[in-house]
Amino acid sequence: MDCIFCKIIDGSIPSRKIYEDEEVLAFHDIQPAAAQHALIIPKKHIATMNDVQAEDWQLIGSVHRAAQIVAKELGVAESGYRLINNCGKDGGQVVFHIHYHLLGGEKLGPLHARS
Amino acid sequence: MDCIFCKIIDGSIPSRKIYEDEEVLAFHDIQPAAAQHALIIPKKHIATMNDVQAEDWQLIGSVHRAAQIVAKELGVAESGYRLINNCGKDGGQVVFHIHYHLLGGEKLGPLHARS
Repeated sequence: MDCIFCKIIDGSIPSRKIYEDEEVLAFHDIQPAAAQHALIIPKKHIATMNDVQAEDWQLIGSVHRAAQIVAKELGVAESGYRLINNCGKDGGQVVFHIHYHLLGGEKLGPLHARS
Repeated sequence: MDCIFCKIIDGSIPSRKIYEDEEVLAFHDIQPAAAQHALIIPKKHIATMNDVQAEDWQLIGSVHRAAQIVAKELGVAESGYRLINNCGKDGGQVVFHIHYHLLGGEKLGPLHARS
């Protein structure tokens, strides 16, 4: 499987890990878009939100449970943060292994800045 | 409970409904930030992502199952979309009843446009 996130999960590509459990991995984004920028991913390879099947909604819950932990770990739980999942072309999805961005550590702007 | 989303759920404030099941309601945002802009909320009142308890992660999965349906309903599943949860002050959370924004129908910009 030629998936960069699967390679981060198996350790063949290094990452700055923030949190890990049996189902989920969280690590620092290498190109942070905010003062704090984590990526939170299920270990199971699912390409996009459209590809999540009935048996995997529980896993999406687990990803959010991890996000709650990551926010505390990064010291942004109380100041606030934004969780983002991009799906497909218009969403700006780049890596086709489902992931959530956690942005924080600064006041975040509008939901969608029209260019 | 003086919560605008609880009032939308109980029907005392009207909304343009997109999807509803026993656990989740989705409706059009009255101030759309993109060509398509839905709000997807659990019917259970939970203030923020920080307040989700162990028994409710399943519900967060259900909210995402609904998001998948809403994306199809709005005709943006294939073109792509962005799901956003704002938590607390830095996240820009305005209504303190947990909700996900689904934005689509146009090419979305960067994750965070610094001002």
